[in-house]
Parts: sequence; C-alpha cells; structure tokens
Amino acid sequence: MLNTTDFRSDNVTGASPEVLRALEAANAGSADPYGEDGLTKRVQGKLAEIFETDCAVFPVATGTAANALTLATLTPPYGAIYCHEAAHVNVDECGAPELFTGGAKLVAMAGAGGKITAADLADRLARSGKGVVHQVQAATVSLTQATESGTTYKPAEIAAIAAAGAKYGVRLHMDGARFANALVGLKATPADITWRAGVTALSFGASKNGALAAEAVILFDKQLAEEFAFRRKRGGHLFSKMRFLAAQLDAYLEGDLWLRNARHANAMARRLADGLARIPAARLAQPVEANEVFVHLPEKTIAALEQEGFGFYRWDNAQLLRLVGSWNTDPAGVDRFLAAAARHAAVAV
Amino acid sequence: MLNTTDFRSDNVTGASPEVLRALEAANAGSADPYGEDGLTKRVQGKLAEIFETDCAVFPVATGTAANALTLATLTPPYGAIYCHEAAHVNVDECGAPELFTGGAKLVAMAGAGGKITAADLADRLARSGKGVVHQVQAATVSLTQATESGTTYKPAEIAAIAAAGAKYGVRLHMDGARFANALVGLKATPADITWRAGVTALSFGASKNGALAAEAVILFDKQLAEEFAFRRKRGGHLFSKMRFLAAQLDAYLEGDLWLRNARHANAMARRLADGLARIPAARLAQPVEANEVFVHLPEKTIAALEQEGFGFYRWDNAQLLRLVGSWNTDPAGVDRFLAAAARHAAVAV
Amino acid sequence: MLNTTDFRSDNVTGASPEVLRALEAANAGSADPYGEDGLTKRVQGKLAEIFETDCAVFPVATGTAANALTLATLTPPYGAIYCHEAAHVNVDECGAPELFTGGAKLVAMAGAGGKITAADLADRLARSGKGVVHQVQAATVSLTQATESGTTYKPAEIAAIAAAGAKYGVRLHMDGARFANALVGLKATPADITWRAGVTALSFGASKNGALAAEAVILFDKQLAEEFAFRRKRGGHLFSKMRFLAAQLDAYLEGDLWLRNARHANAMARRLADGLARIPAARLAQPVEANEVFVHLPEKTIAALEQEGFGFYRWDNAQLLRLVGSWNTDPAGVDRFLAAAARHAAVAV
Amino acid sequence: MLNTTDFRSDNVTGASPEVLRALEAANAGSADPYGEDGLTKRVQGKLAEIFETDCAVFPVATGTAANALTLATLTPPYGAIYCHEAAHVNVDECGAPELFTGGAKLVAMAGAGGKITAADLADRLARSGKGVVHQVQAATVSLTQATESGTTYKPAEIAAIAAAGAKYGVRLHMDGARFANALVGLKATPADITWRAGVTALSFGASKNGALAAEAVILFDKQLAEEFAFRRKRGGHLFSKMRFLAAQLDAYLEGDLWLRNARHANAMARRLADGLARIPAARLAQPVEANEVFVHLPEKTIAALEQEGFGFYRWDNAQLLRLVGSWNTDPAGVDRFLAAAARHAAVAV
Repeated sequence: MLNTTDFRSDNVTGASPEVLRALEAANAGSADPYGEDGLTKRVQGKLAEIFETDCAVFPVATGTAANALTLATLTPPYGAIYCHEAAHVNVDECGAPELFTGGAKLVAMAGAGGKITAADLADRLARSGKGVVHQVQAATVSLTQATESGTTYKPAEIAAIAAAGAKYGVRLHMDGARFANALVGLKATPADITWRAGVTALSFGASKNGALAAEAVILFDKQLAEEFAFRRKRGGHLFSKMRFLAAQLDAYLEGDLWLRNARHANAMARRLADGLARIPAARLAQPVEANEVFVHLPEKTIAALEQEGFGFYRWDNAQLLRLVGSWNTDPAGVDRFLAAAARHAAVAV
Repeated sequence: MLNTTDFRSDNVTGASPEVLRALEAANAGSADPYGEDGLTKRVQGKLAEIFETDCAVFPVATGTAANALTLATLTPPYGAIYCHEAAHVNVDECGAPELFTGGAKLVAMAGAGGKITAADLADRLARSGKGVVHQVQAATVSLTQATESGTTYKPAEIAAIAAAGAKYGVRLHMDGARFANALVGLKATPADITWRAGVTALSFGASKNGALAAEAVILFDKQLAEEFAFRRKRGGHLFSKMRFLAAQLDAYLEGDLWLRNARHANAMARRLADGLARIPAARLAQPVEANEVFVHLPEKTIAALEQEGFGFYRWDNAQLLRLVGSWNTDPAGVDRFLAAAARHAAVAV
Repeated sequence: MLNTTDFRSDNVTGASPEVLRALEAANAGSADPYGEDGLTKRVQGKLAEIFETDCAVFPVATGTAANALTLATLTPPYGAIYCHEAAHVNVDECGAPELFTGGAKLVAMAGAGGKITAADLADRLARSGKGVVHQVQAATVSLTQATESGTTYKPAEIAAIAAAGAKYGVRLHMDGARFANALVGLKATPADITWRAGVTALSFGASKNGALAAEAVILFDKQLAEEFAFRRKRGGHLFSKMRFLAAQLDAYLEGDLWLRNARHANAMARRLADGLARIPAARLAQPVEANEVFVHLPEKTIAALEQEGFGFYRWDNAQLLRLVGSWNTDPAGVDRFLAAAARHAAVAV
Repeated sequence: MLNTTDFRSDNVTGASPEVLRALEAANAGSADPYGEDGLTKRVQGKLAEIFETDCAVFPVATGTAANALTLATLTPPYGAIYCHEAAHVNVDECGAPELFTGGAKLVAMAGAGGKITAADLADRLARSGKGVVHQVQAATVSLTQATESGTTYKPAEIAAIAAAGAKYGVRLHMDGARFANALVGLKATPADITWRAGVTALSFGASKNGALAAEAVILFDKQLAEEFAFRRKRGGHLFSKMRFLAAQLDAYLEGDLWLRNARHANAMARRLADGLARIPAARLAQPVEANEVFVHLPEKTIAALEQEGFGFYRWDNAQLLRLVGSWNTDPAGVDRFLAAAARHAAVAV
C-alpha cells in the first residue's frame, strides 16, 4: 500500500487502513441520519479537546466545500475576501467562494513564499474604501496553512494578520487543507495557530492526509453555527449517512493518526529537499516547512525523470517542480528519485 | 448487519458489504485525481451499457447535489422548474436548486399520489407567460422516480409529460434518489423510463440503496457535460480522490447488486403493505409501488408502536406513518412490526 | 394632458406637471452625486414627517427594485418569503427577489380578494420547519397594499399578520406600489398601516401615481440601512444624479400632491364601479377599495369595447377586465366607457 | 445653468435643456409601457443608424446596470472577465458584475494609462486554464472607453484585443460611460471603435454627458437580446414608463447633441490641460484624450485651491488631482481655476 514514486500530490494516494476499518465498523446497525449519530458527536468532542475550546464542527467531503461554505458564512455578498494571489480559494476552486457568498470579491495579494503579511494587509485595508458604498467591503481574510508554496504561517504572523484585520471588523479564515502538515512543521498546538491567534473559522483537512474524502469545518465562534448548517444543507453538502464522514474523521484523530501521518509526509518532503540540496544543478524555490518541495531543475533533468515515470507536477509550466510527500510515501521511492535526479542532473549540466 | 425494525428511511441503514470491499480494493496504489482514474471510467462504461446509450456520467456524493447541479445546468437564472409540491427539490433541499441556478423559481404543482400529470403540466405551461419579460420562463420539469409518496411514473406517463414540456422547450429532469426501487417496481428497462421517454438528465441514486454516499448524474444530452463539469467543481462537489466515489458505484452496479438490493427493499415494503392490509384499523394512503408504505393508523396504535421502539416517521405530524423498506431490512423485523401493529390496533379500536 | 380612455394601467399615463417642473428646478447648478444632495435629504425629512417616525429612506427608480432590494435585506439566501400567490413579487418580477436574495424561496399562499390572512399565515408558519435544516427558513412576509385585486389591508389585518409572523421571527414587508391609493381608500394615516401595525420596510410607490420613475424604500428599522445601501449600489440602483429621483419624490409629496392624485384615481375607479354596477350583465369581481376595478362582462361586450378603442387588460385571458383609474383619468372618458359598455351589454345579453 | 468651478465629475452637473424639454414632450397622452412605446423604437432606429448596423438596444438608467447586465449576458457564473485593475466594473460597482453574473470572477490587469494591451491579454489567456475544471473560464474582456485615466483605445488597439480574446472564445464588452468623449477625441466613427473592431456589446453612456439618468445597452450580436431582456427585468431595470428613459436618449442623439456636448467637455479638459502645462509645478499624469485631466500639484497648491472652493477629487488620496470637463463647464471658470492654480503654485514652490 506504499506510494512509491508518485509525488504529484497528496491527493493521488489512498486512505489509511485505520480509516477504512472505521468505515467497516460504522456500518453496523442503523444510525440517525444527517449528523445526529453518535460518531459525529464523538468527532465534535475530540476536536473540541484537541483545540482546547468549545467549538462547532461540521464534517464535509471536500476542501472546496469547507472553504466556500465557511467564507459564505463570514462574508456578505457585497464583501471582500483578502487572500494570497496563489490561494486555492482564488485560483483552484472555479469560483466556489463567489458562488456560495453570492458574488463576494476575492482580493488577491502578492507575497513572498506564498504568504501575505500583516503590513501589506493593513495597507490594503486602509485603502479599501470601508464604509464607501461604491466599494466591496472588506470582511474576511483567508490564509492557507500550510501555504500553496509549502511554507507555514507562524503563530505571531497569524496574530498580526488577525489584528490588522480586526481593526476593520475583518475576520480570519484558515484554509487548513494541509493543517496537520503545518502543525507538525511548526511544533505548535492547534489552538496556538488558530483561535488563540485570532482565527474565527478553520477548514480542517483530512482528505490529503489519510482520509478518503473528509474535512471538518471548525467554527470557533459558535454563533456562526446556525447559519452554517443551513448553508451546508443548501449546498448539497449535508450527508444523509453522515456516520461515514464522521467515521473517517474519528479514525483520523484517534491515537494521533493525523499527526503521525503528517509527520511522515513532512519527513519525506524533508528527505527530498535534503537530497536535492546536494545536487548542484538543483535549487530549492521555497523553504520546506511542511510536506511540499518546490525545486528548480534543468529541463533535460526534468524530462529524463518524467521519462523514467516519476510522478510530479511542473509549476507554471516551467522548470519548477512540485514534489509532495504523503502519509504513505515510500522512503525507498524517495531515494530512487534522488538518485535518478542526481544522475540526470550531472549529465544535464 | 440486518436492519431489524428501523423503518424510518433508507438512509438510516448502512452500506452493502460489496461496496465496502470495493473501497478497500480501490485503496491500492496511487490514482489520477478528480475523476481521471480507471474506476470512474469503468462506471461510465457500465452506466452507458445499462442505459443502452452514450451518456455523460458525473459521480457526486449527495442527492441534493445531484439534483441542484443538474437543474442549474438545465435552467437559466430567470427560468422556472415545474415539480410536484411534495418534491424533494421543492421542500427538502433548503433551497439548493435556487442557490445553484442563481435564483430560478420552483413552481409547485398539486397531484394525486405524489405525481403530476401531463394534462396539468400542459395547462400550467399554456398560462406560464412564455416569452413575456415579466414572468420567469418555463425551462425544466423535475419528476421524482419513485415519488415522495412511494408511487412510480409509468413510461407512458413520463413520455406524455416530456411531450407536454417539449412543446415549450422545457426539458425533463428525473430525481432518481430511489431510481432502482422504481425500476424494479415498474419492470421496465432503465432506458424505457429515462431517455426513451424523453428524460434529459437523471439523478441516479445509490446512497439509499446500498452505497455509503454516492449518486451519479447521468446526462443523456452530452452537450450539457462541459457546463456540468464546471458547476460540479464550483459547487465543491468534485472529489479529489474520486476513485472512492467511483468504487461505490462500480460495486453497486456489479452483478446487479443495485437491482437485488432494490428488489429486497421493495419486497419488504410489499410485505409491510400486505400485512397492514389485513389490519382493519389500518388504511393504506398510497399504492405501494416501490419501497415506501404510507399507512393511516389510530393514534393509540402509533403511540404503542413508538413505545415499543419501532422506527418510522409520522407524515405531516399526523396519524399517517411512512415505513421504508431497505436493502437489508430483516423480514423477521417486518413480521414483528406487523404482529405488534395488529395487536395494538385490535385494542385501539 | 388628461388620460381619456386608456384604463390598462396607471403606468400608461404620464407624470404630474408638478413633477416635471421639479426636474427643471433641480437642474440648476451642480450637486453632490449619489444621494448626498440637498433634495434627497429633504425627501428623507418629508417622509419622516409623513410617517411620524425616524426612518431610513432610499430612492430607487422601479417598484421591482424597491421590492427585491428590500426583500434581500430582510431575507437570508436560505430564507422564505410568504406572500399571496398573485403578488407582484411572486409573478411579475421575473424572479427579481430570487436574484437579489441569492435564491430565497417565495411561498405563495391562496386567499380571497388578493389578500392573505393572519390565520392562514400562522398555520403555514407552524408547519414551515423552523429550525429544521432541510427546509428554507421563514424570514419575511410581503403584503401588497393595495393588493393586486384592488383591495386593501386594514390596519388590524396588518397587525394580526405581523403578530403571526413575529412569533417566528418573521418580518413584514409592504409592497406599496399603490400605497397612496390604499391609504386614501382606508382613510388611515401612513403610520397606522405601516410601522404601527408592525411593518418593517415599505416600498413606497410614486411611479404609478404621478412620477416618471421614482419609488422610495422606507426602512422603519434603521439598522437595516447600511446593508441596504450596499445592496442598492451593487444592484445598479444608485443614481449618480440622484437629485433627479429626489426631485420627483419631493414634488410628489409637496402640498399633498400624492394624496390628491390618489384620491382622483380612486374616485375614477369608484365612478367606473358605480356605473358598471348599473349594468345588469356586469358583475364586479372584487370590492373596489383603491383605484382598480375588476369586472366580468360578456365576451361580446368586451370585444365591442376593444373594437371601439377603449384600453384595458383582460385578466387570466378571460371575460374578466381590469380597469385602472389614474391620477389624470378624464371623468368624461369614464362616462363614455360606461355608456359604451351599457350599450354593448344590452345588445350582448 | 453653466457649471462654473466644479470639476469633480461629469455626474455633478445637470442635464441639457433639450433633454428636459424632451421629457415634457413625452409626457403627453398615454403610452405602451415597458418599452413598447414609439420613443423607445425611435431611439433604437437612431442608434442603428449611428452605428451603421442592425443591433439590439436596451435603455437602462445607470452605468452600473448597463455594465453588470451586459457582463452577465456574456459570462457564465463560472466565467472570468478580464479588465484593467482600475476599471469601474472592478472597483466602483460594489460587486455588481459578481451579483448579476452569479459569481463570475473579475481578473484585474495592470496597464499604463488605464489601458490593457493585447499582448498582456494574450499572455494571460494562454495561462488561464481554458478547459481546466479547477479554473474559472475566460469568457469576456471589458474595456472602458474613455478609460478611468482619461485616455482612449484606438480602433487598432481594440481590434487587437478582440482578436487576442477571440482565439479563446472570449467576447468583448465596452464600458462606454464616456463613449461620446472618447469618440470625439478619437475622431473615429462609432462603428470603428465598436463592432467593426470586434466589440460584441456596448454600455452607451448618456448620464454623464447631458442626460438625467439614461444609458443604452447596445448588443451587436442580436442573439443576446432575448436573454438580456429577462435579465434587465429581473434586475429591476425595466422601467414601466420607459418613454421617459427613451425621451432622454432621443433628445441626446437628436441633432448630434451628444457629440456637441462631448466636444465641449473635451475642449474644457484640453483648456485645463494646456493651462496646467504652463505651470512649472504642475505635471500631467496622463495624456488628455477625452474630458478628464490628471495632474500632480504641490500639496500646498491643492489645499489652497480647495480652500478657494474649487471642486475636484484627489486621486488615491494623494497629490494627484482629477479634473473633469462637462458638457456645460464654463470656460471662464476654467480660466479662474488656472489663474488660481498658477498663483498658488508659484507660492508653493
């Protein structure tokens, strides 16, 4: 069941055996539908404990659903959502946030390492026309943790961004499709990088880190829960047999499976990065802080690696590769990739 | 794993063992994400064969998603969707069709047995203001098969409705959350009650009949496929690890599991209906043509059954019960229910 | 400038001379755009005085805009708006409320004389699934005053409806496209039939009663004002040269022009009704309480009147006519119509 | 009636006397509502003649309505609209295009002089993910003519942009809020800078150039007309007494009033620009190609001009002024402004 040499994304691999076994176990007997079952309640309890706070939890099946439904709960139709220009919500969701918000505007910001800064945000908000009827109204900031560049926001960075927003009544959403990878990379607690730093709502990802298709929206402001529930149903994202979503999350959280999975994925990315650092023709494009590696390689090297069947994506259609470590990435596969890269790069130069 | 005495809905029971085993099998190795995997292609092939026609197939996880995305593809924002007043799309989806269409209007029609008639539709369309700028424009008819009253539309009824609509450029959607139950009840072919009768798009349900959470949107007009694909993604309904949706559908279709499951569910409903018919105080409210039974019973009888722990829903908060047969309903449980009902009804009168 | 024999609608006639002169006067010099001008402020003051309460006032140009923007401010996307089945918002706005609310649902209710009752509303709300995630949530009731049948809601009727709604957190909108006609018909004060009876927001019509194109949205709950302002702008309904909307409303309210116009229109409807009552073959379909008359006449009579060039609409494409009195309807024209109707009806029978 | 020293915008001045007289004339008698009147038809004829082509014409009252309704007709909800980052549709309409399209995305492009280039567009479109389900789909380009920087697109520039878009099935919208100013600045024909250069739909402005509140949407592809009509109604932008919108446009076009007004406005901008060019401390920020002047002045000079009561806006809250010439700007006022600016600037340096 190991993923040997497919580094394209953490969504090309399967699910943890524990998660599959949990589905099997959840299948016994009948259960109240639509989230009134015991498993869903148990997941809520586990997450409240993990995040050290009372919070509202809503399982959904995709990250796009988690993000878009949450942004819609935080943002009026005439609102604006500030995010990094490379954010998944901005470029990879085919306009889901715009659909679910009823036409809010995503304001894309540049920023090194896939991150926006509190200073840039403060500057944008100061010029955003708050209260002016002609302009969409700043309502929400969305951060991706870990970012699309494989970097992470540190607790102090998050808190500074939250504070810059709060000055204008702007609330903070965190897209945590790779939350576990960020967390273990940061060596912080879940609370430290969310509500304690000013995050109002989190898309807590599991699909990329060992689940089949499961995410949890976590609302640290429970007053948002009622509206969210209607939006989830209306979006077609309320499962009748909810226990099968909950079972995935339950197993994912049980015995720290989610952290073990993330640690392995991050370790594989680190192994890739360290190996690539020893290849003179390779140049890491971003610091490796979670489970993604971005590396420049010569065109001939890339072509040769593609030829050999290694799986990865080219970024921006250029000589920049993204390599992603997964919960089940085979270290031996990593080493084979590194050996091949070193061999081809030596020839290419 | 049998469902003994919970007749509330076919969504309170679990999944067929074959479906769970298919998830296990699908978990091996890596796979192309977002529906480019082999399993998804195989499901498309199977459905094309079953429906005896080339068609576009899109797996999604919920019936509400299947319906709302399909209606949005068929209906402009200034359009109208005609349906029975009790239709799931009208009363049980919290406005999902309105959200995904961008504000189209559902026009609710009365009709005996949960069904609308071609004559009523023709009359409504004749007065619908087609071409008049002040009125929403009739675009789509949505039929539920089997209906919310447990009845079914016969092929000739569907064809007549389709023809009445076609006169005004109106296309036909079928909400087939219980398509299999209708099909085996009608003893027709899948093609007979869909595209051959004029259906343009079908929500092909599996979740209620043995899957965990899987439906397939089937577009008989393949020109709708491109738009549908963007709407699915934008709705947050495109799964990254699509193979796990596809695996459910694949197992569901394999070896006619879907038909066997539906036959059992229908047989259990029939067994319930036949037993109730022998109770003088009981009165069946609808003909039983699929897997649902609607029965009037004295209040005291109902209360006593509730007291004993039998599961069912009261309809309209009244002395009308809905009892649903599932793929794994235990005949012995049915018999216990019937015995208890007979016993309590004898006392109640 | 008199409107002689065109009884089709109060929107086929022109504007009061006073309104046109006000446009001329408003044209002098430059003015702050977007409603910051002095005329707009003056209109706000006048309406606050007329309605005997502090309120927020937003001029717009069409009744559909007034209604839809107001409903959107009162109703979440997952909300429901209860109204009479013949309500303009339900049948004559091509889905504008659905667009501006982001897909809320209009729940159409039957009711004699174009009116819904508090009892029916209470019954509907009790069964509306408040708090149930599968159902759209009752949020707003919209009454038309005067109704589409030419009748009016009395203060006590409005208050009872408001109270029935308030029990479920439902707020009251009044579509006052013919508010002046209702008001003078009821011999009530503006406050009596709006906020004092529980109305939260009013579409205050002027276009049909002497303006070119001007309505005012009046929000009796001023906390709604901020959101409304953004929705108006975003809807394309904020005029840059707002003074030209305000000037119409200012002249409309000045010296009770609006009431004089409405009294004339109502008197003409009364004159029509009284005359028709003397024709044996004629039968009034509704009580005449404002400026509209609904009357059954023999087909031959109707055809003959059409032949002679009298203007009116057939209702439901049947032998039911709607005749509308306008601010400038010529009494002599009314009498000519009545004479012709009597003459043709005598022959027709 | 002259506008003496208020250069803030062309929306702070009143309407041409000819336009007001036309309203008076239109007020006689009754007229078919909703655009079925003779005046509306006459305007359609005039515009077809002026643009030398058969086209569909829809009067609306605001530029935001014209733009947003047109973009919604050209762009699916999952579509993208490319425009300059300073475009009115992007920054000054509070998200109207997002509302009316159902959540399409505006893609903002940088560009000197308020203009985008065909080369930049081609580059963006090549990387836009056409056909990729995760990305919004390029559908429309929107150009402002004259631009928000007071510059104009030449026919060849428009044609190149249209061609770059056409390669990807992208259609061209022109926001012509200041179309007349651009036209007389370019010394081109209306056809040359619209359909002959590849423009599919035009927002033809009149409000800023002598009307009270009137714009015309001109669809050069008449197949778009049916959909547009429903969208206009549903947006609350269909006037019942349409003749009063049409009368403004009719007078605006009659005897080339629109061109005379624009020539005067442009001449006043030119007079301002020429005068400012003679002030050493002043620096024009943009070429003056229509009726807007952007000029850098020392802070002290600006403050002194504000103190004297001259009307203008600061751009970006900085030492950059926007001065707008209007159809009725008083040359003597311009000269007074220039004298004051020269006097204060001499001191300031």
